[in-house]
Amino acid sequence: MSRLIVVGGDAAGMSGASQARRMNPDLEIIVFERTGWVSYAACGVPYFVGGDIAELRQLQARTPEQFGGMNIDVRLQHEVIAIDTTGRTVTVRTPAGTLEHHGFDLLLYATGSRGFLAASIEGLDMDGVHQIRTLDDAQRVRTELERGPRHSVVVGGGYIGLEAAEALQNLDIPVRIFEMTPHLLPRTIDAEMAEVIDQQVAGFGIDVHTSTTVDRIIGDRGHVIAVEAGGERYPADIVILGMGSLPNSDLAAQSGIALGSTGAVAVDDHQRTSIEGVYAAGDCAEATHRVSGKPANFHLGTVANKQGRIAGTNIGGGDVAFPGVLGTAITKVHDFEISRTGLTKAEATGAGFDAVAAMLRSSTGAHYWPGSRPMRVRTIAERGSGRLLGAQIVGGPGAGKRIDTFATALWTEMTADELEYVDLSYAPPFSGVWEPANIAARKVGRAAEQA
Amino acid sequence: MSRLIVVGGDAAGMSGASQARRMNPDLEIIVFERTGWVSYAACGVPYFVGGDIAELRQLQARTPEQFGGMNIDVRLQHEVIAIDTTGRTVTVRTPAGTLEHHGFDLLLYATGSRGFLAASIEGLDMDGVHQIRTLDDAQRVRTELERGPRHSVVVGGGYIGLEAAEALQNLDIPVRIFEMTPHLLPRTIDAEMAEVIDQQVAGFGIDVHTSTTVDRIIGDRGHVIAVEAGGERYPADIVILGMGSLPNSDLAAQSGIALGSTGAVAVDDHQRTSIEGVYAAGDCAEATHRVSGKPANFHLGTVANKQGRIAGTNIGGGDVAFPGVLGTAITKVHDFEISRTGLTKAEATGAGFDAVAAMLRSSTGAHYWPGSRPMRVRTIAERGSGRLLGAQIVGGPGAGKRIDTFATALWTEMTADELEYVDLSYAPPFSGVWEPANIAARKVGRAAEQA
Repeated sequence: MSRLIVVGGDAAGMSGASQARRMNPDLEIIVFERTGWVSYAACGVPYFVGGDIAELRQLQARTPEQFGGMNIDVRLQHEVIAIDTTGRTVTVRTPAGTLEHHGFDLLLYATGSRGFLAASIEGLDMDGVHQIRTLDDAQRVRTELERGPRHSVVVGGGYIGLEAAEALQNLDIPVRIFEMTPHLLPRTIDAEMAEVIDQQVAGFGIDVHTSTTVDRIIGDRGHVIAVEAGGERYPADIVILGMGSLPNSDLAAQSGIALGSTGAVAVDDHQRTSIEGVYAAGDCAEATHRVSGKPANFHLGTVANKQGRIAGTNIGGGDVAFPGVLGTAITKVHDFEISRTGLTKAEATGAGFDAVAAMLRSSTGAHYWPGSRPMRVRTIAERGSGRLLGAQIVGGPGAGKRIDTFATALWTEMTADELEYVDLSYAPPFSGVWEPANIAARKVGRAAEQA
Repeated sequence: MSRLIVVGGDAAGMSGASQARRMNPDLEIIVFERTGWVSYAACGVPYFVGGDIAELRQLQARTPEQFGGMNIDVRLQHEVIAIDTTGRTVTVRTPAGTLEHHGFDLLLYATGSRGFLAASIEGLDMDGVHQIRTLDDAQRVRTELERGPRHSVVVGGGYIGLEAAEALQNLDIPVRIFEMTPHLLPRTIDAEMAEVIDQQVAGFGIDVHTSTTVDRIIGDRGHVIAVEAGGERYPADIVILGMGSLPNSDLAAQSGIALGSTGAVAVDDHQRTSIEGVYAAGDCAEATHRVSGKPANFHLGTVANKQGRIAGTNIGGGDVAFPGVLGTAITKVHDFEISRTGLTKAEATGAGFDAVAAMLRSSTGAHYWPGSRPMRVRTIAERGSGRLLGAQIVGGPGAGKRIDTFATALWTEMTADELEYVDLSYAPPFSGVWEPANIAARKVGRAAEQA
């Protein structure tokens, strides 16, 4: 009987384990997870913090016992600290602190990602300073919130930072966000669109400080009391960190598993690493970007689940390829929705495309529909060919999910001219008779024709 | 100077006229419209009736004066009653009842569609019995509603029938719908999904009678007082007709312009009819269905606008092809959304496909998100190849517009296996980590693999 060892029991690891089990009932499967939880929705953590979700267990898709019922042996608080790819064994630190060695025939490396912590910021280890990535983080923040903080600071204006800000505001705690770049959601949204987001978020009463670096977390008896940023001092009883994330690829690198140019584990389209019989999936692994054709490393639950499933199918004896990623993402701040897919104009240019962009101001319903809310669509295309390269949407309820139309169009390398005429749905409560996606395509198609 | 005559001044006609003008500043353009309105959003009429939209003029995209400013000569209440395709003249009845003859070089036939009126129903000409297709209809119904009707009946359970029912309910008037087939939304939604719609609509307190034929409208001094249906008599002070629609192709047929198999005007992909220099677009014209490859005739504002624009471009000297239709449509009854694209299973089978279908029960957000609402997706694919053929969605807010993902997938002849892995957006308020479109594709893909 072959043994599969899965290193990391969240989205990619447990998707992989489950799928390997479905494919091969005879495989022995052991999952080592260093935290106390498996198979949880990390993306739900900000909503637990903000009170939308009452119980932490609601974020757990399946319990270790349920996996046990599938004959998957889940070992919590077991951390894999070394992988011997020649001797085919892993070294595991148990909850008791002892070390165990376990042999494997097949291994799925699914260690996820970790929050980036800027070394330049003093005091990040202070009490009251939290990440909100794991369920353990979530529990700690809720406990902290019971102290009744009166001022909060969010460090970093990415997705997690924005979701944390919304959560804190829902709890009636004043919020300041510090973002070191000139706009919220840097990297994933072009500046022209991010400006709109900055204004909208500030309009909700969140105190947005862009182009502002946090220098120091200031404490009193070990607990945060203020944040020093851009030379000013701001009161803060609780600080949430959202400075981006890094793939957990160190263990792989130490074990001789090759990393790619992004710093994540290099994989082929079957999720195979450089070591025979060793697979990787999820935040710790690379994926091919379908637009740029280059390796990418997104930390998204969608990608982790899909890659995990592909890895599990192949581990279980199947033969399937992971088709790649677009970096499609969505979030909201209160009722303001934000979504993106593909390349930003800046990314497209960086990837070697001669890229053009167009901005459409539209609305979520017909212009005469009383419930219509403003919506903007920024679309990026290649000059000359008109090939669509990316899109970004902001707007009221119903705006954000329209990104999936663009994602599906990008998936098949559609041109702007093609998308202009795709037969999309219309009724006055839902859009104008020309769906904004059609018009956005027309606008960027025209821009792409300009020499 | 060449002269373009446009017969019919709504979506297709005015899109065509506008686009021809943009392409060719020298063209003389005259539009003959038999009603008192041009360029209006017919799809908004039910919402005007129900009070969501306050003023009729809000439904008018552009006024005749605005078209005048584009040097387009719009003549209201002028009905074209004959087209001499040899002598290149049209005969027009003026508001004064006189006949005029106007020569043309180019003609755009854009007469739209008319409501179907079942000859088997007695009393359809009674006062208080209305269609809700034109702005004139809309005004008449609003006047009627000022009489304070206490009971209403809707004849026909299609899109217009459902929208009328919602409108009447918004006005606190009890509503009965009679639909002669076994389910609401026959033809465009498969029975397995239409059942869900029947239940939901009935759950809103609308009295739904399916498999029930209306026999007679009963009046008192010329005004409706009751409806006899399925052998029973029901009180009714107002009756709205929504029995489907027919293309206005009689004038074309009488003028020697060839009709297609659907009964609408046959056109090539440049919107050219069988007569040189005569184009047709909109509800009166056919379009190629991209899934079946066969001629289709949808009465949808989306198609009319797109075909009109293509016709206008070609009339103005351009050379563009209309890429075809999917019959994508969306509506809502209160907060319950309904959408569809491509072929139903019944249509697919009729078109010669060996079709399979799968039903997914899902939700509009993550299962643990408190605002998540139930949502169902029915997906149709070809056995063997797994090619996607159609989809239908019902559910709470946010469900319906997801049909655009399927429409975009159908547009490029995607298979179920491909759609399963498209990188679609996820965050807990918007979907599970596997977007329902991905899971629906997986389900129908599996069904398509069964022998």
